[in-house]
Amino acid sequence: MKRYTVAVVGATGMVGRTLLAILEERTFPVGTLRPLASARSAGKTVRFCGKDLPIAILDETSFDGVDIALFSAGSAVSERFAPIAAQAGAVVIDNTSHFRYQDEIPLVVPEVNREAIFRHRGIIANPNCSTAQLVLVLAAIHRREPVQRMVVSTYQSVSGAGYSLVEELHRQTRQGLDGERPQTADGGPAIAFNVIPRIDRFLDGGQTKEEMKMLWETHKILGDESIGVCCTCVRVPVNVGHAESVNLTFQRPVSPEEIRHWLGDAPGVVVMDDPKQNLFPTPATIAGSDPVAVGRIRQDTSHECGINLWVVADNLRKGAALNAVQIAEEYIKGP
Amino acid sequence: MKRYTVAVVGATGMVGRTLLAILEERTFPVGTLRPLASARSAGKTVRFCGKDLPIAILDETSFDGVDIALFSAGSAVSERFAPIAAQAGAVVIDNTSHFRYQDEIPLVVPEVNREAIFRHRGIIANPNCSTAQLVLVLAAIHRREPVQRMVVSTYQSVSGAGYSLVEELHRQTRQGLDGERPQTADGGPAIAFNVIPRIDRFLDGGQTKEEMKMLWETHKILGDESIGVCCTCVRVPVNVGHAESVNLTFQRPVSPEEIRHWLGDAPGVVVMDDPKQNLFPTPATIAGSDPVAVGRIRQDTSHECGINLWVVADNLRKGAALNAVQIAEEYIKGP
Repeated sequence: MKRYTVAVVGATGMVGRTLLAILEERTFPVGTLRPLASARSAGKTVRFCGKDLPIAILDETSFDGVDIALFSAGSAVSERFAPIAAQAGAVVIDNTSHFRYQDEIPLVVPEVNREAIFRHRGIIANPNCSTAQLVLVLAAIHRREPVQRMVVSTYQSVSGAGYSLVEELHRQTRQGLDGERPQTADGGPAIAFNVIPRIDRFLDGGQTKEEMKMLWETHKILGDESIGVCCTCVRVPVNVGHAESVNLTFQRPVSPEEIRHWLGDAPGVVVMDDPKQNLFPTPATIAGSDPVAVGRIRQDTSHECGINLWVVADNLRKGAALNAVQIAEEYIKGP
Repeated sequence: MKRYTVAVVGATGMVGRTLLAILEERTFPVGTLRPLASARSAGKTVRFCGKDLPIAILDETSFDGVDIALFSAGSAVSERFAPIAAQAGAVVIDNTSHFRYQDEIPLVVPEVNREAIFRHRGIIANPNCSTAQLVLVLAAIHRREPVQRMVVSTYQSVSGAGYSLVEELHRQTRQGLDGERPQTADGGPAIAFNVIPRIDRFLDGGQTKEEMKMLWETHKILGDESIGVCCTCVRVPVNVGHAESVNLTFQRPVSPEEIRHWLGDAPGVVVMDDPKQNLFPTPATIAGSDPVAVGRIRQDTSHECGINLWVVADNLRKGAALNAVQIAEEYIKGP
């Protein structure tokens, strides 16, 4: 069996470490693993398949001989180094937003638009965490009965912003438990014991970029701009796991039973929905697992053609590292 | 000036203590304050206007001579004792859900339906916390331009469930910070570092009672069942302050500027909305203040007649104690 030289850029970050764990869990055919990071990580090692591998410092020569380069080190790093990696002959799977909205760059959730992988010209984009989990569920429904409009409010964990916000949450939480008012560096609202209705920066018109990412990426992955998408993205004091309260409207009445049936067949989705047993997914209970979990499937009380869902996934897995490794798996299988 | 004998039932609870604080802050004309609670609070005192008042144990004779009885000790206590208080000549303002859906019981947010107060037959109901803050904002808009449909996802703090859940959050949070998995008494999902899409019990059809309360109470307070209401109620690890992500649809396009203008005129509402200054309300920043704060006012990206709002209030104040005291204030002013 062919084995691949795989570079992981940003190997010491939260997504980077999850990439290593998932490559190992899924026994991806890695010949050589090349963990790369910035000079700040010099001297560090990462664990992979029982070995401690030294971090190499990312530079222009890092990608010689690399087959697959998984990038998760921020947009600026991808902007500069992803073209270098592609030029060196690697296929880049990029977890940042830098290339996602360029027409010629495929944006892929393998269960939804696997075929787009093979249109790549060296770079394949991995979607935003909150989009990946949602579009997987949406696609399974939309191919059965077209969704006209989707109104989403998110409950996004701090790990979506990396280690620094996880540490910040814990530092502020200790202050809060000690009876102090949690302090932030910039004087903005604390995240400990709070929720913050802003992720990424504000754009003209009052949406945040995170909210628009969900619209742009849903349209691109489904290849269908007819679906109305409206999002409110909110950071919550949860470590790992994003939840989404989703309202869908259709042209005809659709029953919760139909939705359960369609989602029951959908790859990568698990239905966890039994009010009588108090069963529904929560971020803390699904963190560490791969499938996107859906519960609270019920009729909309305001619209006869509406359905509500509660969609939860591990944002480091399906929302980032798992989806990237799945793209790599499909890539090596070929069209 | 006439002074009133005011009983506070459940005086040692979170809402009870807030009732005392607000009666004092607003210099409600209290002649005698009678703090009442169950036998579990025997021997305790509560602070009111610089004095420590002993708790009296609630019984059938507690309401002799009482003018106004503010109840916040759970539905079972209201069911049993509110009729006794009314029979004794007091007007009851009840914070539980027990009487809210009875046709002859007024359900009041004074800024919205003050006139209903004077139809009382001894008992006036105070709405659910998540409804009170929302209906105040909704009414200010709906009287200008009819709202056709409202889709809401909530972010509700633990104080909405009383001291026990606040203490439970803190206990679990310490476990989480210590690297343990937070444990719950019933084996259900923890609230520390998590969000839980269930408040109150599940009803047939898969809605929770909290979700249906928002529908029933919005219709009753506005006196208008034409508005479609669809809610997803979620508990979040916040101490005090409920937030709501609200999507409104109208028959015609309505601009964010119109909404800002209408809310700017609305009593009890404050607009905190300036993306350029990173200004929006959060639960932790508005806890302890009276107005309902609205931010993130923006066009719906999925519907040309849609608007999004982010509505935040102190659930112990406008969501409970403040609204109850405002009802009492209007009651003594008369029709």
